[in-house]
Amino acid sequence: MQFTFETSPARVLFGRGGLRAALPAEVERLGAQRLIVVADPAHEMLAREATAPFAEATIAWFTGVEQHVPVTVAERAVALARQRRADAVLSIGGGSTTGTAKIIARETGLPILAVPTTYAGTEMTPVWGLTRGGRRETGTDPAVLPRTVVLDPDLTDRMPRRLAVASALHAMAHVIEAHWAPGANPVSSALADEAIRALATGLRSLTRESLREAGSPEAALRDPVAAWVGTPIAAGEQLLYGAFLAGGTYAITGTGLHHTICHVLGGTFRLPDAATHAVVLPNVLALNVPAVPVAADRIAHALGADDAVAGIRALLAEVGAPRTLVQLGLRADQLEEAIDRVNAVLPIANPRPVGHAEVRAVLTASFGEAA
Amino acid sequence: MQFTFETSPARVLFGRGGLRAALPAEVERLGAQRLIVVADPAHEMLAREATAPFAEATIAWFTGVEQHVPVTVAERAVALARQRRADAVLSIGGGSTTGTAKIIARETGLPILAVPTTYAGTEMTPVWGLTRGGRRETGTDPAVLPRTVVLDPDLTDRMPRRLAVASALHAMAHVIEAHWAPGANPVSSALADEAIRALATGLRSLTRESLREAGSPEAALRDPVAAWVGTPIAAGEQLLYGAFLAGGTYAITGTGLHHTICHVLGGTFRLPDAATHAVVLPNVLALNVPAVPVAADRIAHALGADDAVAGIRALLAEVGAPRTLVQLGLRADQLEEAIDRVNAVLPIANPRPVGHAEVRAVLTASFGEAA
Repeated sequence: MQFTFETSPARVLFGRGGLRAALPAEVERLGAQRLIVVADPAHEMLAREATAPFAEATIAWFTGVEQHVPVTVAERAVALARQRRADAVLSIGGGSTTGTAKIIARETGLPILAVPTTYAGTEMTPVWGLTRGGRRETGTDPAVLPRTVVLDPDLTDRMPRRLAVASALHAMAHVIEAHWAPGANPVSSALADEAIRALATGLRSLTRESLREAGSPEAALRDPVAAWVGTPIAAGEQLLYGAFLAGGTYAITGTGLHHTICHVLGGTFRLPDAATHAVVLPNVLALNVPAVPVAADRIAHALGADDAVAGIRALLAEVGAPRTLVQLGLRADQLEEAIDRVNAVLPIANPRPVGHAEVRAVLTASFGEAA
Repeated sequence: MQFTFETSPARVLFGRGGLRAALPAEVERLGAQRLIVVADPAHEMLAREATAPFAEATIAWFTGVEQHVPVTVAERAVALARQRRADAVLSIGGGSTTGTAKIIARETGLPILAVPTTYAGTEMTPVWGLTRGGRRETGTDPAVLPRTVVLDPDLTDRMPRRLAVASALHAMAHVIEAHWAPGANPVSSALADEAIRALATGLRSLTRESLREAGSPEAALRDPVAAWVGTPIAAGEQLLYGAFLAGGTYAITGTGLHHTICHVLGGTFRLPDAATHAVVLPNVLALNVPAVPVAADRIAHALGADDAVAGIRALLAEVGAPRTLVQLGLRADQLEEAIDRVNAVLPIANPRPVGHAEVRAVLTASFGEAA
């Protein structure tokens, strides 16, 4: 047993009603007098309600958040924070909202109070990212790690169920890969197991409730989670708890082959992010299982299954996730391009050494038809 | 689900040979030029070997560590650190050694690089303690949390086996109680489960090896772990890993009824610390099990047993731990005094409300004879 374990400081408040209940005290705890509030348009109303206790003049509003944090958008947010002499950032929204707040923190050193509304988990990591000229830039900086995180399931429960499932599956991909990602250690593996349990429990509970609401299994089978907005109460707590653990785990371990493949596929062919994760995950897991029998047993156990690959496939089928890249619209001629592009970023650290044959095997299996 | 989760930053290097391999780089990482080395007499030689790469003139030696950190001893250490203008503390030793380093850090703000040689786990907590005029003073201060921790099983493996078992049982008491201590949350419970697993595995492996070495079960039965110095290799890694998790968990949760009872018994009757923990633990667990069925199931599962109380009793019997306070020398008339003294510190937060009847029940069961 040999490992290095590093954690960042964290203050996380988890519970329903937490945003309204905790916000004034947590802002005071940061010693903040003038907030810049970063929110995506969908959460602006919520943010205005939550910040009603603060004098209007003490708040600068930035509601121009855009997906993937375009650098021009981020620069406007940074300029506003400086111009209004904000002394803390309050972010209320999904991954791109937290991401925009992180760029402000990176440029100004301001502390972030993050209130996520999805299961992105980025509020638990010191990783920042932005898009410049269509290309993704990322880095790690302790200054961007939120100082305080308020996890309020009342907020994440408002997601459309399809987005909730997508967001939770993304988190699940992180914690399965966490078992062998570069920074994995026994502690991160214990946290990953706990996250897998919580996410699987939450996803099953969400699906069960959706099936019940659908009335007929036929209607539900067509798309078991698309029809509803609003995550069932018990599922919402488990999913947000699992997402929080997934973020904390990913902050320790980083990512590996699975995320590299999904990143290449998403960037090249504009495939939907979460669906790509759902398709690729069982195939990367199947590749690695022979090399990591202990981790595979733990993953299976956390999923409540006898076998890790069968367990994750069963869970994905339950939530109605797509099973092949064909279903996501990838064409056979694009498969070869995808293989070439993943080959181009080798070597990738992985428990089972990855060469051209392994890349072809995983992508062909993910493609889903005789290519 | 409602909880607050706070963690301190940590940098932990775990692995055999870590002290020698990592020390120069870790001292440089702290930017330290002049160390004060705090070591107990038993580890002075080891500390001198480990610090051989540093120029002698840059090191101030404090090897006068005494148990329970008497304030006069701590003040001498603080004075030496100031006089020699040390810019970091290197502690190599057991709980009292780390404890002395913490008082230096508390008074001077110097960073600590802690190298524990027992399973005390105190290197993972911001809790300090000292003894003034026979009374224990404790407190919490982020400044005393070691900045870097080197966990090298080669060092802890040198403990006499009886001390190893005692130290590991103390850690076990922390992580069982962590399931319902005041700061318990789902994350600390997941870490506690992992710690219980590691400590139980390590204790069983140590005992098995000792029985094998004893040759005859009769000899071993008399005292299965007393006869040897040096923890078997595989057991040593599990035990140190479990102790590290126990320290980190205790830092989150704090302690409850079990530790209060042991503290009162130890302080009043000078009972041996670890043995007292071993006797009292199953009885506090038995009291609480009806109030915390989920935690009890998790503890049982982590112990590899069907029932939590039976599981911990079986493990304690395996390592030859005493079962009653009578065995530790407590007299029947002292039992009443013990009950009075615990009653005097009520109320104590506990999943099952604790009044005089519960105190009497736990202490009478721990005493072990019709009182």
